[in-house]
Amino acid sequence: MGAKGNRYKDNLKATMRAIWLENKELCVREDLPVPVRLSDEVLVRVLRAGICNTDLELTRGYYPFTGVIGHEFVGLVDEGPDEWIGQHVVGEINAVCGRCTSCLNLRRTHCTNRTVLGIHKRDGAFAEFLTLPLENLHILPSTLSIDAATFTEPLAAALQIQSQLKIDKQDCVMVLGAGKLGQLIARSLELTECDLHVFDRNESKLSLLSNRGIFTGHVDAIPNGVFDIAVECTGNPEGFNIARRSLRPLGTLVMKSTYASNLTLDVSDLVVDEITLMGSRCGPFDLALDMLINKQIEVEDLIHARYPLSQGLDAFETAKQPGVLKVLFDV
Amino acid sequence: MGAKGNRYKDNLKATMRAIWLENKELCVREDLPVPVRLSDEVLVRVLRAGICNTDLELTRGYYPFTGVIGHEFVGLVDEGPDEWIGQHVVGEINAVCGRCTSCLNLRRTHCTNRTVLGIHKRDGAFAEFLTLPLENLHILPSTLSIDAATFTEPLAAALQIQSQLKIDKQDCVMVLGAGKLGQLIARSLELTECDLHVFDRNESKLSLLSNRGIFTGHVDAIPNGVFDIAVECTGNPEGFNIARRSLRPLGTLVMKSTYASNLTLDVSDLVVDEITLMGSRCGPFDLALDMLINKQIEVEDLIHARYPLSQGLDAFETAKQPGVLKVLFDV
Repeated sequence: MGAKGNRYKDNLKATMRAIWLENKELCVREDLPVPVRLSDEVLVRVLRAGICNTDLELTRGYYPFTGVIGHEFVGLVDEGPDEWIGQHVVGEINAVCGRCTSCLNLRRTHCTNRTVLGIHKRDGAFAEFLTLPLENLHILPSTLSIDAATFTEPLAAALQIQSQLKIDKQDCVMVLGAGKLGQLIARSLELTECDLHVFDRNESKLSLLSNRGIFTGHVDAIPNGVFDIAVECTGNPEGFNIARRSLRPLGTLVMKSTYASNLTLDVSDLVVDEITLMGSRCGPFDLALDMLINKQIEVEDLIHARYPLSQGLDAFETAKQPGVLKVLFDV
Repeated sequence: MGAKGNRYKDNLKATMRAIWLENKELCVREDLPVPVRLSDEVLVRVLRAGICNTDLELTRGYYPFTGVIGHEFVGLVDEGPDEWIGQHVVGEINAVCGRCTSCLNLRRTHCTNRTVLGIHKRDGAFAEFLTLPLENLHILPSTLSIDAATFTEPLAAALQIQSQLKIDKQDCVMVLGAGKLGQLIARSLELTECDLHVFDRNESKLSLLSNRGIFTGHVDAIPNGVFDIAVECTGNPEGFNIARRSLRPLGTLVMKSTYASNLTLDVSDLVVDEITLMGSRCGPFDLALDMLINKQIEVEDLIHARYPLSQGLDAFETAKQPGVLKVLFDV
């Protein structure tokens, strides 16, 4: 099977279906050209994709992106080097230049010239096809389910906390928000054996963690001034102040939420209490994949609903409802 | 010489002169009672004291303190255990309970029940006498000048950065603000042999550092996105955004300034660039004293003017002028 022309053999059309974002409005389009890969890229036929909180924030204007959204996916390589064709893959979302200061200093996810799948200057994964540089792909073993593999990207983001900050048994850690990302963060922190507490307003989200033996509680019951580390992943600005108040002096607030609005901050208060705030974003794919393959992290109970791409707007409406965790597209 | 009654022998009055802050207004008072020490405290006759930016911020309402202000001092022990009487001392400014969670976890400067000399619930050092717990005092060797020793507290605050954050030769570090604290921070960072750059608007402040071989520049010439670490010690809110912009992704902004106003922050921007903000306050007195004794840090060129306590308001007016570094009181 040749590296080129494969697309047209399997899929006798030059247009595809995808979910398009423009001026904060989503629509399902049938007329988009199948993307054309560059020489270092592969064309991937998307099999499954997941809606992330960043996708919801993009529809609220957090970042002015126009294009196909979506960045969590599993696909089949459709065009690329012969040995890759037909492989099941997941893909890192930052496509990088390899030459800028960030790239040369091993901070590739911060490449100055990067495009980001479904977020910045690159059409995304809520589509029949996407392109990514070959170097971004990770081949999936047949033992890993497609559903589980769809969580590779958000699990990597959860694990990024531990690449930035050493967390161990001695630490008293709170996770604020038991949503899509909070669930993965809590499950990955559980493995450190730290003293873990997860807070949310939603009982059903919390029960997925308390059933696993993790201490959970309502947001109104969060004590002040006690946690060594607080991870804010509510996806809304109010979460910041709640997480900050929960910290002991010299504690660390990990910020995982991106949202459209700004925050007013009392800097002197952070200085007096010597608080550290740490922004945290994309993480290690290799490690995330290993943990999914070895079933160290279970994710399948997080799937709330599945939609075909053609029902993209319904899928987003569902994903926005309180209490809903992961919504997947069966492409 | 007995431990008690010494005060009345040397100083035949029960009232003293001090600089009093109330409702953001300063006044020199002659009628204040000499403070009475508790059983674990000593009475210190103040010899010299320095005006800090926190003192200036207190007059702007950064924190609603009423009382004698001032916290940088050198004094003579006037009442206390026999072996301490007549010793030259400096003193740590946080008087702690020893029993709260912070104290029991070696975070004594964050004691929940603390009083802070001239800042919070404890009269301060711009006075003829002050009291502090005996455990707060450090005896000065005769080889250390009283002028230099007056810088122990702010130098400890400068050194706190390095107790929170490892900084070494590989790091490209910028200090924003070459004022009283910025000078000490720059001089302490210089010893790490990091790639150090100091920025300010004031040429004369910068020249004290460039004369020592430190790279300095005007604030308008600060490049964006290049520094591993930025230390914000301008004492004003605009400094924050300048320092933040100067950082590369995954960089660290050390916040040393306390000021009265709040700051509006784009949290998503900190998350995307994975920036760490680190509040930093009081630091290690032992280390600061050692460095002053060993002349690893020189401070005497930072002294701009000296006033008697009776001219306290003039001293504060001078200290507020741009370009002015340390103003001392000869008590």
